[in-house]
Amino acid sequence: MNIILDAMGGDHAPYEIIQGAVQALEEFDVTITLVGIESRIRAELSHQDYPKDRIEIVHAPDIIGMHDSAVISLRKKKNSSISVGIRLLKESEKYDAFISAGNTGAVVSASTVYLRMLPGVERPAIGLVLPTLKKFSFLIDVGANIDPKPKHLLHSALMANVYAQKVLNITNPRIGLLNIGAEETKGSDFMKETHKLFSENLPNFSGNVEANEIYKGEYDCIITDGYTGNIVIKISESLMEAAGSLIKREVRKVPLAMWGAFLMKTRLSHIKKHADYSEYGGAPLLGVNGLVMISHGRSNAKAIKNAIRATIHEVENNIISELIREVN
Amino acid sequence: MNIILDAMGGDHAPYEIIQGAVQALEEFDVTITLVGIESRIRAELSHQDYPKDRIEIVHAPDIIGMHDSAVISLRKKKNSSISVGIRLLKESEKYDAFISAGNTGAVVSASTVYLRMLPGVERPAIGLVLPTLKKFSFLIDVGANIDPKPKHLLHSALMANVYAQKVLNITNPRIGLLNIGAEETKGSDFMKETHKLFSENLPNFSGNVEANEIYKGEYDCIITDGYTGNIVIKISESLMEAAGSLIKREVRKVPLAMWGAFLMKTRLSHIKKHADYSEYGGAPLLGVNGLVMISHGRSNAKAIKNAIRATIHEVENNIISELIREVN
Repeated sequence: MNIILDAMGGDHAPYEIIQGAVQALEEFDVTITLVGIESRIRAELSHQDYPKDRIEIVHAPDIIGMHDSAVISLRKKKNSSISVGIRLLKESEKYDAFISAGNTGAVVSASTVYLRMLPGVERPAIGLVLPTLKKFSFLIDVGANIDPKPKHLLHSALMANVYAQKVLNITNPRIGLLNIGAEETKGSDFMKETHKLFSENLPNFSGNVEANEIYKGEYDCIITDGYTGNIVIKISESLMEAAGSLIKREVRKVPLAMWGAFLMKTRLSHIKKHADYSEYGGAPLLGVNGLVMISHGRSNAKAIKNAIRATIHEVENNIISELIREVN
Repeated sequence: MNIILDAMGGDHAPYEIIQGAVQALEEFDVTITLVGIESRIRAELSHQDYPKDRIEIVHAPDIIGMHDSAVISLRKKKNSSISVGIRLLKESEKYDAFISAGNTGAVVSASTVYLRMLPGVERPAIGLVLPTLKKFSFLIDVGANIDPKPKHLLHSALMANVYAQKVLNITNPRIGLLNIGAEETKGSDFMKETHKLFSENLPNFSGNVEANEIYKGEYDCIITDGYTGNIVIKISESLMEAAGSLIKREVRKVPLAMWGAFLMKTRLSHIKKHADYSEYGGAPLLGVNGLVMISHGRSNAKAIKNAIRATIHEVENNIISELIREVN
């Protein structure tokens, strides 16, 4: 198996990305192709001890910033690590997947343009494995398609259904549609139409899910548009951070409370691990004809290693073939 | 001042509502008109000690459930506590405001139909005072208008601007538009059009706010559509609950951690108070020609008392006249 890794993507690239790759080589039976500015990749690797025959380097001189527009990235930076990496995946059977912690818009656009869509799917969608009180839920879309049609949400649901079964090992997943009320008559015309489409085409559709149900973990897959999904994950992330800051600030005011926090530390770190994005490591970009994994911009080495593990699991389960077979 | 209170609205009505009213009479110089099934109100009041001349009762026999549709509530239950209460506010100058913890959709519909809109405003919007790391932010709309036009968001922004200055005492409020990216080119066509409208019409518009900025408290007013705003508040509420459950569950596993939690207790309860919806008590329904406050369905006596306090503050600051003067 050969996985292409964008060495230049993310806030801590290339250092943490390459660290993550080297750690993955120790744990998994995989070859990793690092794409990016060759001199910088070689400089980072020179400090590392790793099996030389299981790392390849492909030079890509252009750099895409986190705030560059997707369209401009695609047109003016044809030799970015993202575009070069995705073209490699497209052009050679040798490669199995592409992972990037870089500019999400650029990854989505380059994947759509170079890999094209899966038969029967019109738009890509990003799925994310969210930790919940029970176990986890697969939330899709968290930002690829911010202005979808109802049928795009149906495609997301069909893909989520396959992903949950084949990759997350959930038999007969419960699928919910994120809405502002539980009844099918709730929400905008768009939501009502989507609900109808789901009812007609999705045997395991379990109805609308309200936002306050998400973290209870009653649904295996939760379907929404990319705008709302993106708001959901960003609000969740920032609220947990704000709660953490607030707890620290309050606890520092009282010495006894500081002892309390110290005594709770192991259990709190267990929760942090449970809620940590880096534990799953990546969010699959579904709908394009190739296996693409998007990692968080803040990814550290551990997140990258875990994204590689999740990607290996996807490759082993032939997720692309399964999607083609089931969704079409 | 005479405030009409829906005695039948909310999960804990009428008991907690009437308790809250009696507590408010002790603290504030106000008369409260309780609307609902008279026999039930009198039964609850018979156990209470309160100034008889400062409580009025108006009978309203119909009952609206939390899941009844707004349209049916309005057409078939003309004598619900919500419809009767709002008509009272409309028809007599004696009354200053209406508060309900009942069915939000029914309150919005009845307010729109009976009170009509303010000149220059086309749709109502619900604002909510959110606690943040700094102090608070006023998020609007959290659920009245789930399918707005860009101009409706501009009206919300203009009203939020007045509310923040006159009721929340913020001079020159920073106003942000909730979006999935900071740049003005981000988001759907709807978002871009709204951004343009804000830039042209709102001198203190500070640009797009991403969802992960909300709880940092850098913006005084955050404007969004009712669908997204509703998702934001529900996800926030449930995530805090989930985090709380998870902490309890983890802490119970380790005796030392239980001691830790005990030692932290006072500071954690301080945070809980900071983040507690019941501290502010109510969310103003802005845009209708009358002062309407919506309380959380789970409101207890304290939340109702605080909603009454916030409403008194709105009445004292002539918020309706100010809105008419500034927004028109």
